[in-house]
Amino acid sequence: MAKCSICGKPAVVDLRYARRRFCAEHFIEFVERKIERSIKEYKMIGKRDRVIAAISGGKDSATLAGVLDRLRDRIGFELILLHIDLGISEYSRKSREASVRLAHRLGLELVIFDVKEMLGYSIPEMALRLRRRACSVCGIVKRYVMNAAGIELGADSVATGHNADDIGSYALKEFLFQNLENIGKLVPVSESIDNLAVRKIKPLYTVYEKESFLYSLLRELPYYHEECPHARLDSLDFTIKEFLNKLEEKFPSIKIQYVKMLARKGSNYPKIVEARSCRHCGLLSLGGECSFCRITRRLRKSPAGPMVRRYFSTLRNHS
Amino acid sequence: MAKCSICGKPAVVDLRYARRRFCAEHFIEFVERKIERSIKEYKMIGKRDRVIAAISGGKDSATLAGVLDRLRDRIGFELILLHIDLGISEYSRKSREASVRLAHRLGLELVIFDVKEMLGYSIPEMALRLRRRACSVCGIVKRYVMNAAGIELGADSVATGHNADDIGSYALKEFLFQNLENIGKLVPVSESIDNLAVRKIKPLYTVYEKESFLYSLLRELPYYHEECPHARLDSLDFTIKEFLNKLEEKFPSIKIQYVKMLARKGSNYPKIVEARSCRHCGLLSLGGECSFCRITRRLRKSPAGPMVRRYFSTLRNHS
Repeated sequence: MAKCSICGKPAVVDLRYARRRFCAEHFIEFVERKIERSIKEYKMIGKRDRVIAAISGGKDSATLAGVLDRLRDRIGFELILLHIDLGISEYSRKSREASVRLAHRLGLELVIFDVKEMLGYSIPEMALRLRRRACSVCGIVKRYVMNAAGIELGADSVATGHNADDIGSYALKEFLFQNLENIGKLVPVSESIDNLAVRKIKPLYTVYEKESFLYSLLRELPYYHEECPHARLDSLDFTIKEFLNKLEEKFPSIKIQYVKMLARKGSNYPKIVEARSCRHCGLLSLGGECSFCRITRRLRKSPAGPMVRRYFSTLRNHS
Repeated sequence: MAKCSICGKPAVVDLRYARRRFCAEHFIEFVERKIERSIKEYKMIGKRDRVIAAISGGKDSATLAGVLDRLRDRIGFELILLHIDLGISEYSRKSREASVRLAHRLGLELVIFDVKEMLGYSIPEMALRLRRRACSVCGIVKRYVMNAAGIELGADSVATGHNADDIGSYALKEFLFQNLENIGKLVPVSESIDNLAVRKIKPLYTVYEKESFLYSLLRELPYYHEECPHARLDSLDFTIKEFLNKLEEKFPSIKIQYVKMLARKGSNYPKIVEARSCRHCGLLSLGGECSFCRITRRLRKSPAGPMVRRYFSTLRNHS
């Protein structure tokens, strides 16, 4: 029977790419050390930082919150969880529940932004009225809420649970369409832009999807395992993931090497130069009106950006 | 039975991505028009240009020479063929033969550069002595000879037979290793650099490998069909080609769209800035001594660059 490379106890996982096998305890330690190294290497979190971890309720969120929670004393930063309830029926209800249980389990403060309650419409309702794909509306709303929360709650950075598989396949998809500006965003740290955009970090940058899954499983962290019903993996995404998995099978660790190179070269991709301030909410926009204010203005009487900012700023003053 | 979309005669090919079927005659016309459009769109060849087409003796070379030959009167340029005999036993002998027959068939001038005769060693012999991979030595020699021929024969550009499949898979491989400078070179036109580097063009940029193959077949152009014995498609190249073919199967024309986007965005990739002149031969180098002079200096008493330049300049004066 395979044994843990560290303690010799029976191994629960064989990491071919790392040429190591681990028991549960040492696998957990391995993932935490790897994330800690990434945080240091890419200078993601400093001492006394205030970090908001955006959690969906899935396995990557659980790993993100679980690991950051254990590192916060060692590094010395403050951690707040943010969950956005998208109003996608059963899926969102269970994801919210999982997020609440996760926060409770870790003893962390959780801020919930309920899209339907705050904006009057759930994501699917917004998509229907705007005649847009739910995923595109969802992306705009989530990015805006995370940014507004980060700015108003005075966070040094907002952390998301993107893992190496996510980053590798997003980047490859953007490469096929040569959306170079979007590739440049797939870096471990996106620096803040004045008072317009909060700093964003991806602590699971070098963690494989499988590792993230196993970590939350072994620590028995609460998470909801269903995919969003709108996120049907389309045929292109699927073909890309399949390709990267095949590469990894043939050349163990190639995926990690690839995202690490991406981290190193990310700043060489062209950037969208002109960052402006949205005339409604004052946060980042490219054309004078940010996407979030534009879509909410079409749905309601007025753009919702300022209201979202006020919501978070009130929370801050009350805490 | 499927019919030609143009004349209604029995079709020999069904181009799903273009939603058209063609008889032999109209397929040939289709490929020639497509290449002519690329030449115009990317401003590859101007009136009264002198173009050197580098031909290996394979199918892409045959298509390149065959199409350029037919376009030279219409556009009005001068065409010279260049074949480099690499000295790789049977493979090179047959490739050279095919090149000679191709030139003869088209009635075009052919310049042959015989590596063994000129440098004293064939490519495999050089690789052995230098303890380097044959493909790496071959790349250095071919690039140098094409450049020197272009400069000394007063060419406006040197054309190569890279097809869309080649370009798409090279670019993807470079992307996986984030060699951004190399991706930027995979454009339809690489402009000349002073008197250091000749302009390079890729007229088959938007032609699928299958189309190039069928074109030379239908025109019964002489070509040698074997792959170089050193060019064993490695597992990585193979997995990349397989992925792109699968994508194309699912999304017909995606490969062409992808290389066209690459053509458009190519100039946005970072470039190696400092172009210098080789202290031996005076052509392009990055560190003061070009790779060709460096390796030939290790093999022989002196760097071979100046001799290669003289060879071509003598040819020019005699023609």
